Amino acid sequence: MKTTLLIHCPDQSGIISAVTGFIHSRGGNIIYLDQHVDMQAGVFFMRLESDFENEGFSVPGFREDFERGIAVPYAMKWNIYLSGQRPRMAIFVSRYNHCLYDLLSRYHSGELEVEIPFILSNHDELRGISEQFELPFYHVPISVSNREAAENKQLALLQAHKVDFIVLARYMQIVTPKLISVYPNKIINIHHSFLPAFAGAKPYHAAFERGVKIIGATSHYVTEELDAGPIIAQDVTTVSHSHTVKDFIAKGRDLEKIVLSRAVELHVRRKTMVYNNKTVIFA
Amino acid sequence: MKTTLLIHCPDQSGIISAVTGFIHSRGGNIIYLDQHVDMQAGVFFMRLESDFENEGFSVPGFREDFERGIAVPYAMKWNIYLSGQRPRMAIFVSRYNHCLYDLLSRYHSGELEVEIPFILSNHDELRGISEQFELPFYHVPISVSNREAAENKQLALLQAHKVDFIVLARYMQIVTPKLISVYPNKIINIHHSFLPAFAGAKPYHAAFERGVKIIGATSHYVTEELDAGPIIAQDVTTVSHSHTVKDFIAKGRDLEKIVLSRAVELHVRRKTMVYNNKTVIFA
Amino acid sequence: MKTTLLIHCPDQSGIISAVTGFIHSRGGNIIYLDQHVDMQAGVFFMRLESDFENEGFSVPGFREDFERGIAVPYAMKWNIYLSGQRPRMAIFVSRYNHCLYDLLSRYHSGELEVEIPFILSNHDELRGISEQFELPFYHVPISVSNREAAENKQLALLQAHKVDFIVLARYMQIVTPKLISVYPNKIINIHHSFLPAFAGAKPYHAAFERGVKIIGATSHYVTEELDAGPIIAQDVTTVSHSHTVKDFIAKGRDLEKIVLSRAVELHVRRKTMVYNNKTVIFA
Amino acid sequence: MKTTLLIHCPDQSGIISAVTGFIHSRGGNIIYLDQHVDMQAGVFFMRLESDFENEGFSVPGFREDFERGIAVPYAMKWNIYLSGQRPRMAIFVSRYNHCLYDLLSRYHSGELEVEIPFILSNHDELRGISEQFELPFYHVPISVSNREAAENKQLALLQAHKVDFIVLARYMQIVTPKLISVYPNKIINIHHSFLPAFAGAKPYHAAFERGVKIIGATSHYVTEELDAGPIIAQDVTTVSHSHTVKDFIAKGRDLEKIVLSRAVELHVRRKTMVYNNKTVIFA
Repeated sequence: MKTTLLIHCPDQSGIISAVTGFIHSRGGNIIYLDQHVDMQAGVFFMRLESDFENEGFSVPGFREDFERGIAVPYAMKWNIYLSGQRPRMAIFVSRYNHCLYDLLSRYHSGELEVEIPFILSNHDELRGISEQFELPFYHVPISVSNREAAENKQLALLQAHKVDFIVLARYMQIVTPKLISVYPNKIINIHHSFLPAFAGAKPYHAAFERGVKIIGATSHYVTEELDAGPIIAQDVTTVSHSHTVKDFIAKGRDLEKIVLSRAVELHVRRKTMVYNNKTVIFA
Repeated sequence: MKTTLLIHCPDQSGIISAVTGFIHSRGGNIIYLDQHVDMQAGVFFMRLESDFENEGFSVPGFREDFERGIAVPYAMKWNIYLSGQRPRMAIFVSRYNHCLYDLLSRYHSGELEVEIPFILSNHDELRGISEQFELPFYHVPISVSNREAAENKQLALLQAHKVDFIVLARYMQIVTPKLISVYPNKIINIHHSFLPAFAGAKPYHAAFERGVKIIGATSHYVTEELDAGPIIAQDVTTVSHSHTVKDFIAKGRDLEKIVLSRAVELHVRRKTMVYNNKTVIFA
Repeated sequence: MKTTLLIHCPDQSGIISAVTGFIHSRGGNIIYLDQHVDMQAGVFFMRLESDFENEGFSVPGFREDFERGIAVPYAMKWNIYLSGQRPRMAIFVSRYNHCLYDLLSRYHSGELEVEIPFILSNHDELRGISEQFELPFYHVPISVSNREAAENKQLALLQAHKVDFIVLARYMQIVTPKLISVYPNKIINIHHSFLPAFAGAKPYHAAFERGVKIIGATSHYVTEELDAGPIIAQDVTTVSHSHTVKDFIAKGRDLEKIVLSRAVELHVRRKTMVYNNKTVIFA
Repeated sequence: MKTTLLIHCPDQSGIISAVTGFIHSRGGNIIYLDQHVDMQAGVFFMRLESDFENEGFSVPGFREDFERGIAVPYAMKWNIYLSGQRPRMAIFVSRYNHCLYDLLSRYHSGELEVEIPFILSNHDELRGISEQFELPFYHVPISVSNREAAENKQLALLQAHKVDFIVLARYMQIVTPKLISVYPNKIINIHHSFLPAFAGAKPYHAAFERGVKIIGATSHYVTEELDAGPIIAQDVTTVSHSHTVKDFIAKGRDLEKIVLSRAVELHVRRKTMVYNNKTVIFA
């Protein structure tokens, strides 16, 4: 049985030895170990893929023993995941379809190992694509007057479908604090600029005005402060004076979809950890 | 005789035809023509390399005829440069030597076709490198009390050595409006971040705090507004959670020297034009 | 009426002046001019976007006059295209769907301005995607015994649908010389490596064996010599010892689809010219 | 006392636990642990930075105990390095100076933590740069008739100066099997192309002929097979039809010096391991 263990705790001597010794004593074979120490914050991070081939192994038993024998003494926050558990991912979109198409084509090819219980949009334009891929589509319009009702509808859908995490695939609405508190570090957004440069609604126009020679896209976990959550992935491409704003936007689309899909993949493979509004990415 | 012609003017019909016809009628052979129209601003830009092999050709004669026959009717701002004219470049530095070494080694190899009348610094540390390359070094310290005197000394040196343009190779002092007004779009700075993100004095620390996955460097012409002048060149490199601020700085050094040297090369080859605080780069 | 003119001819004095003068005399306004001289080969290339607003303008008239007045004297090969003419693009695929999805989603969004008369495959697996996008799908299996019949079927389909150019979106069959001769520099392939490194059938395995730190993808026009046609676009991404062949392939998929779509876009916008087995790309 | 431990051995269960337990039992605190398993070859690699603050710690004692208690049972090849040990690096050059300047300026700034006992060249042109940096320079010309004598002179110099590793900073001579056997995986070369593409003497000309859109540079350990040793670092930059061979070479120079210096830095920090003609890079 293949497992992934994610751990973080105050940095201290002997952690790696204790954890690897524990895994070994339970019959586990360590396939991959990634570790990081944030020296400034004094925090230790570890990601461990192990294979338990022994018959006697059970996850609840492991949880109990590890908690008592290792996690409590070292003051760890930790979790264990079984490989093969496909997380349930909701997609929120508005009118742009390039990120949605990219996610759905990866899902359809088997490349992206998730379940997609539904697609939700504040507009109705992309319903057709949901139908192309035979996925449920919910149209939840948002206006000044219905904001709270809309949010409740979203939460009800997420709960009913046991959604594990949400991908904002160019969803042009601000996500509410309530939703964020239910899904902390579990809402992935794609921002169409090289954050922190050009935060806000029209980043390509701002980049064009400034005359930059490189544009970027940034995928991050959503926090209450707009465009300021922990960055998961970024990428850039070159531009020149000969490109119009329209060209910036077209080049940006390619960045956005690749960067968002890369971030989603990292999240799904449990390769991201968040601390102090920053990510540790064990890629 | 090889020449480079730089032109900008209000966009209008027939410019290219008029200019190329004029060159042709004077016996010039066009080697390269680059052209750009800023549609928003309605401005036309052109860079033309031509070869005049005919005996009768003279630059003053060309200037007079082109001004009257073409430049005035089309309301052009323009200039002509002879290839072989090596511009005179002053280098301002403080304590970091990586950009200085990079510029001087290119100069020494003959790659960078300039004259370097002197190196100027507000500190004395890098005098030894000037001596390595047998170049004059002026130590012009700057303090709160002597700012104006120091600036006058700088201006006197620049004038005495007939300096055409200035390179700030990690010069950690703010250049004064007076100097900028004497060298408009002729002072090239290297900023150690991907502008406009992380302007200010400690960009690598800010980038580290924000947890970005990519860092950059930006070379730009100096204007009165700090870190806001027309961008000439930018480049980036990837970073991760495993890098410390010190690593960011080390990786940044490589970016800074390459990006600055690239910008200087573009300037020297007359491949940059400035309009509306942006550059047209005919690379 | 917006037009794009593509020209190449032996390099000689006065071409630009003659062409731009001709355009101007016919009432055309030059929007963009790109020009290149291959000094080694002595060949001149030009791409000219012009706008003819005058009522009297007719393409046949322009063709006749330009041919007689300009093209013949300068020994040009040339063509003029009207903007708004959507070229007809056939897509050939086998079993991988990532490039197909990327092309179709761009087509569906209106980003890729082509007509797609059909998708053709030597397998039947991707029929479902054609149906998703409501496009005709032809299954033309190829075996040792039916190669000639299959080729004739392909040619008949291409002719019947008046196809202008063909995109091989991971089509795992060698295209025959006959087909290439009917579509010279009009068949665009994506090769899953940084050509010329790792030509052949299993480039990611070869790259993995060699222990490279960067992998790439290359889009090129198909010529008789395998993997050796004129390169249109290339891009790369980093890999490390921690990546398996499977990771190489997954990272490669992202490269392949972006590079192929970029090459198709360049071709559709008439920004590519071919000479001496190389491309001039006016991007 | 800070140490770096490098280990490789057949992959087997319990290694990490055994090694980290041993370190811990000797009073060591693990600062960084990087580990990799080559699944195909069944080989385990580890790099461990540890800090031993206890008074009783001695390297010879550690060596003996680790060898007997851990290395022999697990069939390890391993080594331990003390931080602060500056390796002794000889530089071999010919006529190009850009890589030499880059290495020397990093050395001079304290960025590159090595000793440089001498620079050796088959030509005399770069003697001046050695003098600029006050380093010994040996001119060892090589001709058909003196090849063996020259090699013996090289070996004598390397031995006399206790050289740990050699950097070929654009050294345009083939290194002999004898020298390679004395310095296995300890001679670092920079090849001016994206290997394996364009091996051989004139890669930029070959890249230009092929019409590639990206060029690269590759740093690798030297093995008997030319241009085929384990790759340490690679990087690339874009080119276009508008660049001449001379432009390729100029752009390549920037790549070469950065890539070579990056590889040297990785080697000096003991972040490279070699197995099966490939590198594991713990960066």
